Amino acid sequence: MIEELSKEYDIHVNSQRKSDLDEWVAHYRSFAIEGQTANYIPALRNAHLSQLGITILEPGGTMIKSGDWEVPFTLQSISKVLSFIAACLGRGISYVLERVDVEPTGDAFNSIIRLEMHKPGKPFNPMINAGAITVASLLPGDSSQKKLEFLYGLFENLLGKRPTINEEVYQSEWQTSHRNRALAHYLKETNYLESEVEEALEVYLMQCSIEVTTEDIALLGLILSQDGYHPVRKEQVIPKKVAKLAKALMLTCGMYNASGKFAAFIGVPAKSGVSGGIMALVPPSARSGMPFQDGCGIGIYGPAIDEYGNSVAGSLLLKQMAQEWDLSIF
Amino acid sequence: MIEELSKEYDIHVNSQRKSDLDEWVAHYRSFAIEGQTANYIPALRNAHLSQLGITILEPGGTMIKSGDWEVPFTLQSISKVLSFIAACLGRGISYVLERVDVEPTGDAFNSIIRLEMHKPGKPFNPMINAGAITVASLLPGDSSQKKLEFLYGLFENLLGKRPTINEEVYQSEWQTSHRNRALAHYLKETNYLESEVEEALEVYLMQCSIEVTTEDIALLGLILSQDGYHPVRKEQVIPKKVAKLAKALMLTCGMYNASGKFAAFIGVPAKSGVSGGIMALVPPSARSGMPFQDGCGIGIYGPAIDEYGNSVAGSLLLKQMAQEWDLSIF
Amino acid sequence: MIEELSKEYDIHVNSQRKSDLDEWVAHYRSFAIEGQTANYIPALRNAHLSQLGITILEPGGTMIKSGDWEVPFTLQSISKVLSFIAACLGRGISYVLERVDVEPTGDAFNSIIRLEMHKPGKPFNPMINAGAITVASLLPGDSSQKKLEFLYGLFENLLGKRPTINEEVYQSEWQTSHRNRALAHYLKETNYLESEVEEALEVYLMQCSIEVTTEDIALLGLILSQDGYHPVRKEQVIPKKVAKLAKALMLTCGMYNASGKFAAFIGVPAKSGVSGGIMALVPPSARSGMPFQDGCGIGIYGPAIDEYGNSVAGSLLLKQMAQEWDLSIF
Amino acid sequence: MIEELSKEYDIHVNSQRKSDLDEWVAHYRSFAIEGQTANYIPALRNAHLSQLGITILEPGGTMIKSGDWEVPFTLQSISKVLSFIAACLGRGISYVLERVDVEPTGDAFNSIIRLEMHKPGKPFNPMINAGAITVASLLPGDSSQKKLEFLYGLFENLLGKRPTINEEVYQSEWQTSHRNRALAHYLKETNYLESEVEEALEVYLMQCSIEVTTEDIALLGLILSQDGYHPVRKEQVIPKKVAKLAKALMLTCGMYNASGKFAAFIGVPAKSGVSGGIMALVPPSARSGMPFQDGCGIGIYGPAIDEYGNSVAGSLLLKQMAQEWDLSIF
Repeated sequence: MIEELSKEYDIHVNSQRKSDLDEWVAHYRSFAIEGQTANYIPALRNAHLSQLGITILEPGGTMIKSGDWEVPFTLQSISKVLSFIAACLGRGISYVLERVDVEPTGDAFNSIIRLEMHKPGKPFNPMINAGAITVASLLPGDSSQKKLEFLYGLFENLLGKRPTINEEVYQSEWQTSHRNRALAHYLKETNYLESEVEEALEVYLMQCSIEVTTEDIALLGLILSQDGYHPVRKEQVIPKKVAKLAKALMLTCGMYNASGKFAAFIGVPAKSGVSGGIMALVPPSARSGMPFQDGCGIGIYGPAIDEYGNSVAGSLLLKQMAQEWDLSIF
Repeated sequence: MIEELSKEYDIHVNSQRKSDLDEWVAHYRSFAIEGQTANYIPALRNAHLSQLGITILEPGGTMIKSGDWEVPFTLQSISKVLSFIAACLGRGISYVLERVDVEPTGDAFNSIIRLEMHKPGKPFNPMINAGAITVASLLPGDSSQKKLEFLYGLFENLLGKRPTINEEVYQSEWQTSHRNRALAHYLKETNYLESEVEEALEVYLMQCSIEVTTEDIALLGLILSQDGYHPVRKEQVIPKKVAKLAKALMLTCGMYNASGKFAAFIGVPAKSGVSGGIMALVPPSARSGMPFQDGCGIGIYGPAIDEYGNSVAGSLLLKQMAQEWDLSIF
Repeated sequence: MIEELSKEYDIHVNSQRKSDLDEWVAHYRSFAIEGQTANYIPALRNAHLSQLGITILEPGGTMIKSGDWEVPFTLQSISKVLSFIAACLGRGISYVLERVDVEPTGDAFNSIIRLEMHKPGKPFNPMINAGAITVASLLPGDSSQKKLEFLYGLFENLLGKRPTINEEVYQSEWQTSHRNRALAHYLKETNYLESEVEEALEVYLMQCSIEVTTEDIALLGLILSQDGYHPVRKEQVIPKKVAKLAKALMLTCGMYNASGKFAAFIGVPAKSGVSGGIMALVPPSARSGMPFQDGCGIGIYGPAIDEYGNSVAGSLLLKQMAQEWDLSIF
Repeated sequence: MIEELSKEYDIHVNSQRKSDLDEWVAHYRSFAIEGQTANYIPALRNAHLSQLGITILEPGGTMIKSGDWEVPFTLQSISKVLSFIAACLGRGISYVLERVDVEPTGDAFNSIIRLEMHKPGKPFNPMINAGAITVASLLPGDSSQKKLEFLYGLFENLLGKRPTINEEVYQSEWQTSHRNRALAHYLKETNYLESEVEEALEVYLMQCSIEVTTEDIALLGLILSQDGYHPVRKEQVIPKKVAKLAKALMLTCGMYNASGKFAAFIGVPAKSGVSGGIMALVPPSARSGMPFQDGCGIGIYGPAIDEYGNSVAGSLLLKQMAQEWDLSIF
C-alpha cells in the first residue's frame, strides 16, 4: 500500500504548505531538548532527541512530507487504537465495551488506583494501559499467536504489508514491564482479562513493538478520517461506527493525561506513543477553501517526550498546524 | 433576542424533522421513570418527571420545537460554560487557565479527592464543581454583586434579556450546599480561590439558579456552534478562541463522568445540569445534504436525571438525533 | 490541683533520673533546628524553636521537671483526647462510636480523601481533624457555649482550675482554618456533624486554644495511666473503660501519621499537638525495680515540629526515656 | 518442643479458668454463622464453620485448652509476624525498615492504592500483603529455597519441629494469587522487592501454607510475650528489640483494618489469618492477683471469618477473655 501511495500520491503538490511545514519542523526540532526519550524502556533510550518528521496524506492523493519522516519507530501506545478496532471487529462493539469503558480519567497511563477505587474495577478506557491489556486479551483466538495474527491481519488489510516487529524493543519491554504485569494480574483477579496474564502481555507488548514510519500512521489516520473508508483501496475497511468510536476515544483519551489540553488547544483526534509518534487526523470540514477540507491523516515522529509521554516537538508542530490551518473539529 | 427569534425564525419549517422529533419526544418521555429528580436540592424535587422538551435553532433562521420546550428550569451546571466564557472575557484565557486546568477526570462532579491527591490541588477543569467555584471567584469585580453583574451582562449580550433568578432554588441550594462549601474552603486554603468563600459560593449558586427555557440554551448553543458569531445580532459576541475552548471542554467534560460515553456514542459538544437541561450544539459540517449542515444549537429539558446527573430522556433523545441525522463531529 | 501538686508532690526526689533528664533535655534541645514551628497558624510561628521542657508525675507523689517545663502553650490536637473523653462521658461510648470509628489511617491529620473513598464517610478516628470536629459537635449542649462549658467542666474536674484560652491563637486559627471548614462542611453533608458547621468549629478551635504547661498535661497523662483514677483527688474521675479506650487511641492514632513508628520504637500512649506539646503516659508495669513501675504521666513541650506535626526534640527525648528506662508497654 | 510442652506443662491446672473457657467456647461457636470461610482460597472453603478451639500457655508451665484446639490449619497472615522476625534476624532491623514502614493504613490487606498514592511506594507495614511480600524477598538467601530454609530454621528454633506445608493450600493459593502477583510486580517496579517476583511469591505463599495448631501459635505468642525469651528452652531466642517491634506491629496492624477496634476493645497484641487463626499474647502485668500476671500466649482457631478477614468466633472469644480477665495492656 505504502508503495502504491508513492505511485498514486503526488508528493509535495502544494508548495506553500510544504514550505510552511519545512519551516515549522526546523523551528520546533530545537524544542526537543525540553523532553527526553522514554528511559524506562531501555531500547528507546538511544533515539536521536532532535529528530522530527511528518507525513500528511489527503484522500484525494496529496502527500506532504518533511524532516525525518522516514525514520522507523515503534507504535507503542498508538497500537492501542489498532487493537481496539481489531477487538471491535472480532468481538463486536458491545462485547468489548462490557469489559472496558470509554471514560477519560485524568490519571497517568499506568495508574492502578482507579481499578481499586471504582469497584468492580472495569478499566476506564482502552487508551490507558489497563484498558489496552484487557483489549489485547479480547482479540479473537485462543493463543497469543492467534490473537496477534488477527491484529496483524488488520494491519495488513489497512497498510498493505505485514507488520515488522522490533525484537530488541520487544525483549526490552518484556523484561522490564513490571507495572504492566501488575495491571494484568489485577485485571485477571477481577475477571476482566479473557486470557492468561502472560498471553495478554505478550500480545500487548508485541503490538507496541510494531515498527512503522510517519507514512504508515498517516495512512491509518487518513482511513479513520474517512470514517473507515480506505481512499487508496477504495473500500470500507473499518465500519463507520467503529471508526467514529475510535476517533472519539483518541480525542478524549488519546494523549495520555494531557488529552484535555490537546482537545482544547489543538482539537483534532490524536494518539501518541512513548516512542515519540503521534497519529492524528482531520475529519472532512465545512470550511470551504480551507486546507485539508476533505480531511487528512497525519503521522508525526519526534522521540523526545514530555512528562505526560507525548512528543514535545511533535505536539508543538501539531499545535502550529492546527492554529495556522484552522484544523480544530470544534 | 428570544422575542426577535420568534419574529426572525420560521418555526417548524421542516415538517419531516419536526414530525421525527415529535415522535421521539413522545417515545423517550416514558424512559424518564428510570431516573429521578435531583433530590439533594429540595426545590428541584417537585419537577414533573415525564416532561421532555426540545428547541433546535439553525443559523439560517429555522427553529424546531417539540414537547415541553417552554417549561422554565434553572441552568445549574450549564451555567459553568457561561461563567467560564465570562471569566475568559474578563481576565484572559491564560489567566483563567493558570487557576483551572482543562483535563477530564472520570470523577463525580462534586469529588474532592483529586484536589488532595494531585498537589497542589489545581482544579482539573471548569465543568466540575471545584473548577466552577474557582471560575466564579475569577469573574471581574471585587464583590459577588459585581461578579454577577459581569456574568449577567454576558447573558444579556447573548440572549437579549436580563437573567431571571429562581429565588426558591437559590435559597434551597444556599441552605444545603455543604459539599460545595467544603470544596470552596479547600480551594481557599490552596489559594485557588480569588475571593472569599461565601462570595464565590454566592456567585456560583446564583448562576446555577438562572431560569431559562430550551429556547434560551438552544440560542447559547447556536452561538457557540458558530464559533461565537451571533446569527441574529450578526456580530462576533465571543472570541472564536474562547468559543472553541468552551466547546472542547463541553465535549471532554460536559456530561459529568459520562462525558466519554457521550463523546463516543453521540459525539457533539453538550453540557448538562442536574435540573435536567442539556445545552448541545452541532458545528457546521462537510456532509453536504445532511441535516443541520450549517450547524445548530440544541436545548433540551427533561428533569429525571440518571446516576451521573444527566437527563435520562434528554440523553436518549439526543442520541437518537445524533444517530439518525449523523451529527457526530468525528 | 496544680497548686496542690506543688504541695503534695516531692519535686526532684530522684536525683539520678532528674540529672539524666537534664542532660537529655540539654542534648536534644539542639535537634529542634531540624523542625520548624507550625507556620500555618500565624500565632504559633513565633515560638522559640530551641525550647524544650518536661514534667513527669508519678502516682505516689514524685514530680520531676526539667528545662522549659513552665512555658505556656496551647493544647492543639492534645485536646482531642480530652474532648473524646468528654463526649463519651456526656453521650456514652457507643453513641460516640456510631459517629466516629477508631481505626488508624496512615493519612495526614487533615486529609479529606478517605471521607469520600469510604462511603458513607464516617471519620476513621477521633485523633484526626475530621473525627475531632465530629466529636466536638457531639458534646452535650445545644450551643457552642454549652458544649464548651461541658468540656471546661471536665478540664476543671481533672486539673482543678478553669482553662485559659489563648485568644490570639484562637483568632488566628479561626481566620485561617479553611481546611477544617472544608472537613466540617463535608461532614455536615454526610450527616456526621450534630451541630451547625460554625458551632462545631468554634468548639474545636476553642479547645485547641486552651493554654497549658507541661505540668498540666503530665497530670492528664497520669490520670489516664491510672485508668481514670485521680491520684491527688483520690477518686475515679474517668470511667476505666473510657480511659482504656483513650489510651488505645493515643497509641494507634495519637502521633499523627507517625503513630506506627511511635508505637514501634517508643511504645507508650502519647498525643501530640502542632504547638509542640506531647502528652504521654506509662501504665503500671510488671517490671519490678524498674523506674515508674506504678506508671506515670509525662508532659513535654518543644515547639519545633517535624513533617508529621510532632515535636522534633520532644519525640527524641521521649524515645531516649523509653529506651533507657524500658517504658514500652509491649 | 510441643511434645516437651505436654511433659512440662500442667494441663488444665486452673479449673475455674478452664471451665470459663469451655463455657465461652461453647457459646461463641454458634456466632460463626455470621462469617464465612475464606472462599477466595479454594482449599480453605471446606473448613467446618462452627469449629472453635483455643490454647493458652503461661510461662510458668500452665496450659489451658478448650474446644477444637487440635485441628490443624494454615498460618496464612500469622506467618507475617514470623517472616518479619526472620528478616530482622537475618538482615538487621534498620535494613528491613528501609524497605517497609511500620504505619497502620486503614486499608484492606490487599490494597494497592497507597503504593501509587504515596510515592515512592514504600509498603506501609509488614502486616499487609504488600509489606509481607517485600519482607519475604528480604529473607537471607539467593533463592526461594534458601529463604524458606532460613524461615523454617527460625520456626524450628522456636517450636522444636520442622514446619509442615499444606501442599493443597499452597497449590490453591499459587494458582489464584493474582492480586498478590499484582502487588509483587508493582513492588518490583518500584525497587522494593529484593528478589524476582515469582521467588518472593513462592516464599510468601509457602509461609502462608505452614500447618499449625492452636498449641503452636500459643507458644509463638508466649515467646513474644516474654520479649523473645523461650520459657521452655530457657534462652533468649529472639532479641528483645525485635520482639517488642513485632508486638507493636501486631497491636497497630495485626488484625487487618479492624486493628484499631481490636486495640480499643481487646487491647492485646494479636495477629490473625484468613484461615481463622489468631495468635495473641499478654505481656506480664502489674495487676497483682490477676490471671496471667506473668503473661501468656494464646492460640485460637475458628475458620468462619468476617469482612475484615478475622475469625468471627475467635474475636468474640478473645474479647470476652480480655474483659473478664482484664488483659488489656493499656
